[in-house]
Amino acid sequence: MGAEASKAIFLKQFPAGMPGESDFVEKEIEVPAPEPGEMLCRTVWMSVDPYMRGRMRPDVKSYIPPFTLDKPLEGGAVSEVVESNIEGYAPGDYVVDFLGGWKQYYVSKGERTQKVDPNMAPLSAYLGVLGMPGLTAWSGLTQILKPKEGETLFVSGAAGAVGSVVCQLGKAKGCRVIGSAGSKAKCDWLEKEAGVDVALNYKDYKNAGELTKALAEAAPKGVDCYFENVGGMHLEAALNCIALGGRMAWCGMIASYNNQEPEPGPPNLINVVGRGVMIRGFIVSEFMDKAMEFAMEVAPLLAQGKIKFNESVYDGLAKAPEAFIGLFKGENFGKAVVRVGPDKL
Amino acid sequence: MGAEASKAIFLKQFPAGMPGESDFVEKEIEVPAPEPGEMLCRTVWMSVDPYMRGRMRPDVKSYIPPFTLDKPLEGGAVSEVVESNIEGYAPGDYVVDFLGGWKQYYVSKGERTQKVDPNMAPLSAYLGVLGMPGLTAWSGLTQILKPKEGETLFVSGAAGAVGSVVCQLGKAKGCRVIGSAGSKAKCDWLEKEAGVDVALNYKDYKNAGELTKALAEAAPKGVDCYFENVGGMHLEAALNCIALGGRMAWCGMIASYNNQEPEPGPPNLINVVGRGVMIRGFIVSEFMDKAMEFAMEVAPLLAQGKIKFNESVYDGLAKAPEAFIGLFKGENFGKAVVRVGPDKL
Repeated sequence: MGAEASKAIFLKQFPAGMPGESDFVEKEIEVPAPEPGEMLCRTVWMSVDPYMRGRMRPDVKSYIPPFTLDKPLEGGAVSEVVESNIEGYAPGDYVVDFLGGWKQYYVSKGERTQKVDPNMAPLSAYLGVLGMPGLTAWSGLTQILKPKEGETLFVSGAAGAVGSVVCQLGKAKGCRVIGSAGSKAKCDWLEKEAGVDVALNYKDYKNAGELTKALAEAAPKGVDCYFENVGGMHLEAALNCIALGGRMAWCGMIASYNNQEPEPGPPNLINVVGRGVMIRGFIVSEFMDKAMEFAMEVAPLLAQGKIKFNESVYDGLAKAPEAFIGLFKGENFGKAVVRVGPDKL
Repeated sequence: MGAEASKAIFLKQFPAGMPGESDFVEKEIEVPAPEPGEMLCRTVWMSVDPYMRGRMRPDVKSYIPPFTLDKPLEGGAVSEVVESNIEGYAPGDYVVDFLGGWKQYYVSKGERTQKVDPNMAPLSAYLGVLGMPGLTAWSGLTQILKPKEGETLFVSGAAGAVGSVVCQLGKAKGCRVIGSAGSKAKCDWLEKEAGVDVALNYKDYKNAGELTKALAEAAPKGVDCYFENVGGMHLEAALNCIALGGRMAWCGMIASYNNQEPEPGPPNLINVVGRGVMIRGFIVSEFMDKAMEFAMEVAPLLAQGKIKFNESVYDGLAKAPEAFIGLFKGENFGKAVVRVGPDKL
């Protein structure tokens, strides 16, 4: 065996504002045969995630470096090992890593790679509830917010890949959980399937004042813990309703990721002072060493049906830009994943 | 002995925007004789502090309730005990409490009261470096920011009663310290007397972009710890320069206390996510149980001349509104205190 021809998606240019399909281009690349200490992998499922938008800015200082135009995009994927020169990996093994996204084949040195068992869960779940979004949800909740039984937890983007796991873990910990989402179908799912106490369709509220009123009604004792995925009027409402001694985990602010002009922050940050609030921003990579602890807690809940999840499945690598763009239009319901190839060739 | 006539300052109305002297009114009140379990106190020094502006809004939810129009204002004071029906307090004792401000005489039940020794430090210092501002500075630095030797600490409002103590404690802990203040005289004092590495006169910078550039030059490795007293463009610049894993203690945002329309927050809050920043707002009352630990650390530094401080002294109770208003005009240099009466009658 040797080199493989692979389709791969590149950025054509850094998107200005909302990304469009014309910002992406599919090219054919030659993937070299793996050297000693390397393996050749075939992507089966790839993930699209909001944080990738941040990597599509050439000038951002963050834990993750920006993408470049001269290399294929990358991201989380579940892949099959095709050929291996790494001890412990054999053809037919399945792995999750952060390289395999946006391409069909690639060479890996096995860095930041986990083997996964296709018999324990559907392969795509390793990109969602059992993958990075699940670890993100678990980390923000258990390592930052640390809610106590009976406390009120508010989750924005509650029907998304991260938010839906936060909500259900919060319920499992005995919290009153309030979630916001952008459609009636999502809110129905949250209340009827995910067990959320109150789901707010934020499109019913014209501004932060209206959302504040609804949140205050849903959280009569105030919001003890806020899991932030959205920003904008969600953050302002959460700051209005935060309880004395409240905690906030800031995971993302998707509402502003495509702004070309910076959008001002909320006018009520002073509440952080007067109410003694703790805010902690985070990127999941900080908690990679907790992946095992996460799996030990979440896998049984999943097996017992105490955590439910949705997927929006896009078929074929060519659909990856559409799947990614859908993240910012609220079009995906649950985790957005792209099927790049069949489980087995 | 019995009842005492006392001058006292009331709010005439809740100020709209910047407070003016016409928002205050001096009245003569009758202070009753102390009952059993009470003592009569005579205010010697009173404190004016920025947090009081927050109590001059009728609708704010905070750890401290708002003032009302039908009672004298209150606040920190050093007072002499005149008559005591409380065991442990005798006429001639000096106490610090949160009642004695804005009046000449008052009855106290001895709640939230500390005895102070007039021979250990000037009495007014118990309202500044050895009082609530000092405890605020120490708490934010040691209980929230926890700077390590060699880290960079940025302090806004650095020449103020709180900021100046933060800066000097930061130097004592081996930090590189950058302070901002609003005049050349204050910046000179910070660099020459307080030992701050770089003092920035924020009036030299037209906007957050210019302040960011100056801060980035002064903090080439980024800002590890930010002590927030000011808000506005200071917060925006700090968020631009905050290091990965940086920490912020939000103590106040004096720039916006007199806004009638809420002012938007900074547009770069997303940096909190990408850089894994921890923010903690606080009110000093949270750390009252640490007052002893604070005194044990700060008193020796003060005795050794390692902490220097300035005072703006206003003479007479009638000057209290002017002293308070001066806080928001940047007119005070160091702790603003009002001498209400002589040390001894």
